[in-house]
Amino acid sequence: MPNAALMERRNRALGAGTPLFYRQPLHIVRGEGVHLFDADGRRYVDMYNNVPCVGHAHPRVVEAMARQQATLNVHSRYLHEGIVAFAERLAALHGPAIESVVFSCSGTEANEIALRMARFATGRRGILCTDATYHGNNDLVGSLSGLGGREVTHPDVAAFAFPQAFRPIAPGLTGEALTDAYLESLESAIQRLEASGAGVAALIVCSIFANEGLPDVPPGFMARAAERVRAAGGLVIADEVQAGYSRCGQWWGYGVTGFTPDIVVTGKPMGAGLPLAATAASRALVETFRRNTRYFNTFASSPLQAAVGMAVLDVIEDEGLIENAATVGPALKAALEGRKHRWNAIGDVRGVGLFIGVEMVDADGRPDGEQAVEVVNRLKDLGLLTSNAGAHGNVVKVRPPLVFSQDDADAFLFAFDAVVDGLRG
Amino acid sequence: MPNAALMERRNRALGAGTPLFYRQPLHIVRGEGVHLFDADGRRYVDMYNNVPCVGHAHPRVVEAMARQQATLNVHSRYLHEGIVAFAERLAALHGPAIESVVFSCSGTEANEIALRMARFATGRRGILCTDATYHGNNDLVGSLSGLGGREVTHPDVAAFAFPQAFRPIAPGLTGEALTDAYLESLESAIQRLEASGAGVAALIVCSIFANEGLPDVPPGFMARAAERVRAAGGLVIADEVQAGYSRCGQWWGYGVTGFTPDIVVTGKPMGAGLPLAATAASRALVETFRRNTRYFNTFASSPLQAAVGMAVLDVIEDEGLIENAATVGPALKAALEGRKHRWNAIGDVRGVGLFIGVEMVDADGRPDGEQAVEVVNRLKDLGLLTSNAGAHGNVVKVRPPLVFSQDDADAFLFAFDAVVDGLRG
Repeated sequence: MPNAALMERRNRALGAGTPLFYRQPLHIVRGEGVHLFDADGRRYVDMYNNVPCVGHAHPRVVEAMARQQATLNVHSRYLHEGIVAFAERLAALHGPAIESVVFSCSGTEANEIALRMARFATGRRGILCTDATYHGNNDLVGSLSGLGGREVTHPDVAAFAFPQAFRPIAPGLTGEALTDAYLESLESAIQRLEASGAGVAALIVCSIFANEGLPDVPPGFMARAAERVRAAGGLVIADEVQAGYSRCGQWWGYGVTGFTPDIVVTGKPMGAGLPLAATAASRALVETFRRNTRYFNTFASSPLQAAVGMAVLDVIEDEGLIENAATVGPALKAALEGRKHRWNAIGDVRGVGLFIGVEMVDADGRPDGEQAVEVVNRLKDLGLLTSNAGAHGNVVKVRPPLVFSQDDADAFLFAFDAVVDGLRG
Repeated sequence: MPNAALMERRNRALGAGTPLFYRQPLHIVRGEGVHLFDADGRRYVDMYNNVPCVGHAHPRVVEAMARQQATLNVHSRYLHEGIVAFAERLAALHGPAIESVVFSCSGTEANEIALRMARFATGRRGILCTDATYHGNNDLVGSLSGLGGREVTHPDVAAFAFPQAFRPIAPGLTGEALTDAYLESLESAIQRLEASGAGVAALIVCSIFANEGLPDVPPGFMARAAERVRAAGGLVIADEVQAGYSRCGQWWGYGVTGFTPDIVVTGKPMGAGLPLAATAASRALVETFRRNTRYFNTFASSPLQAAVGMAVLDVIEDEGLIENAATVGPALKAALEGRKHRWNAIGDVRGVGLFIGVEMVDADGRPDGEQAVEVVNRLKDLGLLTSNAGAHGNVVKVRPPLVFSQDDADAFLFAFDAVVDGLRG
């Protein structure tokens, strides 16, 4: 079917304005490993999708899913060994303070559970988040979204300037002085919550500030921020929906930025496309939440989630995907950094593991979102799928399935050079 | 593994207080058709689960799920024919005013989308709901929950008395007078929202008032309620998460209670356990929501949801499950009604299609929740799985997979007689 006819049907069936990638949207019909294929049989290297972290259509995931659905898939008010074992395995991927898990079906749900957990535990309502973040799409969690220049206006939410070295909060600051400046911004947000009477229930951050554009975080910022939040009586929530599950070349992003969360939220890659998310914390915190809500989620904590979730963890471990992210990612980042001096349009290269951002700037060094969109669309035409992100939308976002290889990286660099070279024309 | 050891692991891994059914919880390991099997190989007739509406482990669902996961399962920002076709098919199951669909992963998410859609479309915030309802588990939708005696306290929510003939709002009222009395309760809720400045954005009801205990609704109540809500500028939302998808012996519960919704929410049975829900409305309403939110849901509108959702619809149609619900259900209800005169403990028998409630009462005719719990647990011991529900928790809830047969109904009646007879001892 030609794309125009399908677009028209889609606009009616789902409503015009339903988000689509690329100026000329892709009609994708098949995936395998790191590749996606369109309706004309054209192959693309997927450098965007973190949900199929083990690669598209992984046979072990398919097999686990089919076997469990053919055996039992039912809600969680019966005992089931699989879901208990999955929760135990997840909790064991953290330090001993993380003991128990609440399963849900999306990062939004899991972040909301984390926020409500913190509110019940502290008796306070105030939430601290950055000024260019996104933690989900519903009424409560959506109120935290400062992404795309939207102002955070909810009375129980206070935003602080996200920490970064590239465009520092005050000109010329570096090192400890820069850290101090961002802690002042956090302090001011804490003061606002305390003055309003909301108090501090929690700080929630993506552990590597992915939506903010993967900034280089000033030294020690997160450890000191966590300390300050706890002194104010609040809890620290690590949103690991993007950062976690091996993406960073280690299990969790909080290891990269150096802090210990009270509550950890995971989502996207957990189920290889099966809706699956989790909020993990101490048993005391989880039981405080359970007691206050009697939380029940029809589709969560299911045998299907457990079976698929276990298969994804098995593949990550058996195929050495952490090691792959820890080697291929940094090598690609280093190669891209080498390009900074060749083209002025590349303002900065940042990231960790297989999550890299290339910041596009104009001749005066200002964020250039249009240039990033141009790069993303030209890369797509060459068969490489990326997207743009960041506080100004000017960061080319590279976040492939974790099976992305050195050969894939080489092919990308070849195409990237051609695209950026072409921008000058 | 003995249940006690598994319970202990579960209490640690998921937190004590994670909901469980039955005084002695079941350890279920397998399902097939209308049956569930425990770890000791004991077989139970499932008379509770509406999620596996086509029966547990239906091979066509398993096959569709496995095939799609092995082909492609990715987010919705690429074009995909399957999800468009599924949305078209869903919309076509309603009248012509329902044109477009927003997919999500749970009834909670879908109800929240409906509420936000109504708020954007009307520019008002107020929500009308009944005083013994439940529409979901998150911050916004959870604020509507009056179930279990909880008071609805959110300033933008106004509750009215749920309509019923068995325990009328004022003694002795029947027929039109009873309808008028409940409309007065609704009117008073509308007045409260208008006085507070919230105004009326929407009325949301389960089309057959399932959580309220499946009351016999006074004649014409819903049609007149919808008319009144529209006159106040609000929209009418049918929560069909429990009522819809053939349960009532017809596609939708709103056909039973006789009204035409502006927005229809579906969930539980859509994906046979795959998280899948939908909010359907006119294209204008859906596009108003899209424009205001740029709503994106990582796991929703996926090829997997479409493939599994299509398979479920295929089975419903090909195996005549509407007809089955329309014949087996009413016959079972009639048989249970015949028991009312035999035992005083049965106060009332209500319901529609394969959704039946048996109201347990004490010697003075008052709601007897403990008796209902006793019946549910004794039925379980005899191999029949039900639960209790209703505003007072005293309604034995019968809501089996739609493949529940006349033979299953006969077996249930035999066990039910033994259990209720035993109650007197």
